[in-house]
Amino acid sequence: MNTLLGLTQLEKRDAQDSLAAKRDAFILPPNTIYLDGNSLGAMPKVAATRAQEVLATQWSLDLIKSWNSHSWIDLPSTVGEKIARLIGATPGQVISCDSTSVNLFKVLSSAMLMQQGRSIVLSQQGNFPTDLYMVEGLANLLGEQHCQLQLVTDQSDIEAQLSKDVAVLMLTQVDFRSGRLLDMQRLTKLAHAKGILVIWDLAHSAGALPIELDACNVDFAVGCGYKYLNGGPGAPAFLYAAKRHHANLRQPLSGWMGHKTPFSFDKHYQNAPGIEQFLTGTPPILSMSVLDAALDVFADVKMSQLRQKSLGLSRCFHQLVGQHASLNELKLLTPLAEEERGSQLAYQHPNAYALCQALIKRGVIADFRAPDILRLGFTPLYLRYTDIWHAVAILADIVSSNEYLKPEYAVRHKVT
Amino acid sequence: MNTLLGLTQLEKRDAQDSLAAKRDAFILPPNTIYLDGNSLGAMPKVAATRAQEVLATQWSLDLIKSWNSHSWIDLPSTVGEKIARLIGATPGQVISCDSTSVNLFKVLSSAMLMQQGRSIVLSQQGNFPTDLYMVEGLANLLGEQHCQLQLVTDQSDIEAQLSKDVAVLMLTQVDFRSGRLLDMQRLTKLAHAKGILVIWDLAHSAGALPIELDACNVDFAVGCGYKYLNGGPGAPAFLYAAKRHHANLRQPLSGWMGHKTPFSFDKHYQNAPGIEQFLTGTPPILSMSVLDAALDVFADVKMSQLRQKSLGLSRCFHQLVGQHASLNELKLLTPLAEEERGSQLAYQHPNAYALCQALIKRGVIADFRAPDILRLGFTPLYLRYTDIWHAVAILADIVSSNEYLKPEYAVRHKVT
Repeated sequence: MNTLLGLTQLEKRDAQDSLAAKRDAFILPPNTIYLDGNSLGAMPKVAATRAQEVLATQWSLDLIKSWNSHSWIDLPSTVGEKIARLIGATPGQVISCDSTSVNLFKVLSSAMLMQQGRSIVLSQQGNFPTDLYMVEGLANLLGEQHCQLQLVTDQSDIEAQLSKDVAVLMLTQVDFRSGRLLDMQRLTKLAHAKGILVIWDLAHSAGALPIELDACNVDFAVGCGYKYLNGGPGAPAFLYAAKRHHANLRQPLSGWMGHKTPFSFDKHYQNAPGIEQFLTGTPPILSMSVLDAALDVFADVKMSQLRQKSLGLSRCFHQLVGQHASLNELKLLTPLAEEERGSQLAYQHPNAYALCQALIKRGVIADFRAPDILRLGFTPLYLRYTDIWHAVAILADIVSSNEYLKPEYAVRHKVT
Repeated sequence: MNTLLGLTQLEKRDAQDSLAAKRDAFILPPNTIYLDGNSLGAMPKVAATRAQEVLATQWSLDLIKSWNSHSWIDLPSTVGEKIARLIGATPGQVISCDSTSVNLFKVLSSAMLMQQGRSIVLSQQGNFPTDLYMVEGLANLLGEQHCQLQLVTDQSDIEAQLSKDVAVLMLTQVDFRSGRLLDMQRLTKLAHAKGILVIWDLAHSAGALPIELDACNVDFAVGCGYKYLNGGPGAPAFLYAAKRHHANLRQPLSGWMGHKTPFSFDKHYQNAPGIEQFLTGTPPILSMSVLDAALDVFADVKMSQLRQKSLGLSRCFHQLVGQHASLNELKLLTPLAEEERGSQLAYQHPNAYALCQALIKRGVIADFRAPDILRLGFTPLYLRYTDIWHAVAILADIVSSNEYLKPEYAVRHKVT
């Protein structure tokens, strides 16, 4: 970090980048640097082609026959297995379905049923709100004696709170706000030592960094299809349940797709023996087909390769921030240690909202998290090192020129 | 029924059909008569156009900004209101989200929480299995003292089973197998008289016949987007909750989209005051946009007009069956009285499976329901009276020629 990082150096890095060609697999808007792939991934070209095929042939012409002839019925498993490879799961443990929130309810309520006599769900106050809301919903349904949410304010307090009263430890691997990465292996092991089941939310890590669910002996995990997996807006989510639990489960959202033989129209529910028992209703085929195609972009990519570039991009961003005096008010919230950060950086700044709006106006899509956080996501499949250079240069210009103080950037619009 | 129905007469009916032009709004496979729109509706042309727009502009170019600029965030309500018009609901009571099964869980568990002290969910043995499975799942989660499923074998027994122990009466308006239509107004009233809340599943009625949820004083309803609403395979489902209940609800799948202010990232869940409280996770935008576009086909259609044609088509089918001696083994399971049938006909036949396969081979797409039912759906938006004539002629030919006895039609494939 002693010498200044220049554009020429970054051009060289792009030229040497083994993932550089992947950018061509995506449609990207012109004159835009997209640092929000952690909210909504960019569109892979194969996704559009696949959607077209589903419309022009599968739905319109082959109609109901497509459940078999185009294997719609297998899509949740097909997609699940493609994701499994990215999160360190051997076959038969991952399935795609519903939303992350709904899937969390399934694994959480299953886990609570397995942990009769324990009532606490332990999590972090800063966890993504929907995760906590889903626990609140289950607690309200079951009553406090059967389910109650307990929160720690800091990740360093988790260990101390692991007790024999805790049924489930529910954590998000990468914090949506700060980008902090938790130690999955260590925390899972500590929880297991107290008889606690562990649920990991991979929303901000799947497709961004190597994950080893099997090796970490994780019990359950859920994750999102539309962020780093590039499955399209609101793409179906996924769910992991370790094979060792499959025979002892009873998930309450037991719809026909999770039945052993859905099309026998049995009077009574009998769960499918494998991971399919977590399916509920009919999956949204168009959205799921697009996710299926999008995952093919990962087929020849190693997660280690992805991680290396992701860290390279964020390191470069932060180094460049340090090179601009105008940016010294930006306070990095994300841990600098590589083993403690995901694929995003979060900076505090008193004018974070205005900065974010001014960046967007200049074609740098970042996002804002209340009250004062500017959040930047680094997606190694379609970002270049030179993009990072330009993004920081624009940010520095916005600050040094006071452009961000324009009144138009002060008003908050409906936010996403 | 005294004179024989001939092709010329049906050509005349097509020429006079006020819905005839609607057929042009759909892509239909060549040389096919599609009598399975009650399983998966045909593709409206506007659906493909809309999907294209979501891919080519909204997702790929406008990316995350589309949540506001293309009103993705409002889609569940936008779609909900379009469906509301078709099911007799005034604004603010219908929302599109998740699958029918998941939505059923939401309204069922909400209703059970409102009915503390009563534990029985009363339904019909012949109800669509997923509805019953979802009750089983909830019962297993809550324990039998809080939730238990009680089934009547015949719809005529429902009234006798309505008692002060029943919390919820859960019925499907049109039976998926027989096509029998229940009397929503009468049954809802009878249930209310005993303090029972009523949930109607509209999977086989929404978009096929006039429904008056408000006028019938229904408490909750769920339904499917991919049958008569033509929203595409696995299209998002919908949910109705009467406004009078909105202030007293606490649905357990309380994800961030159902929060009063989802993007304030509040620590605690506070439900949205209106029907939005039934939202859970992020909706599959591509599938939901296609459903949204598909619903526009209904914009200038009156439900009474739809019903009249639907009944005309099925009446015509059954009359033509009666004109073919070879078809006298077909036993109609569907009630003939118009107030007792939906938009499909179900025939029992010892070789129903083979008949169905032979029909499909000849371009007439029907479906089979175990053990011996041939099921035919009549979708007034894209079927012609002459289609019915040809379909029955082909069926009669298959039987009289013994074509259906070919060994290739005897083997059951993976079914849908």
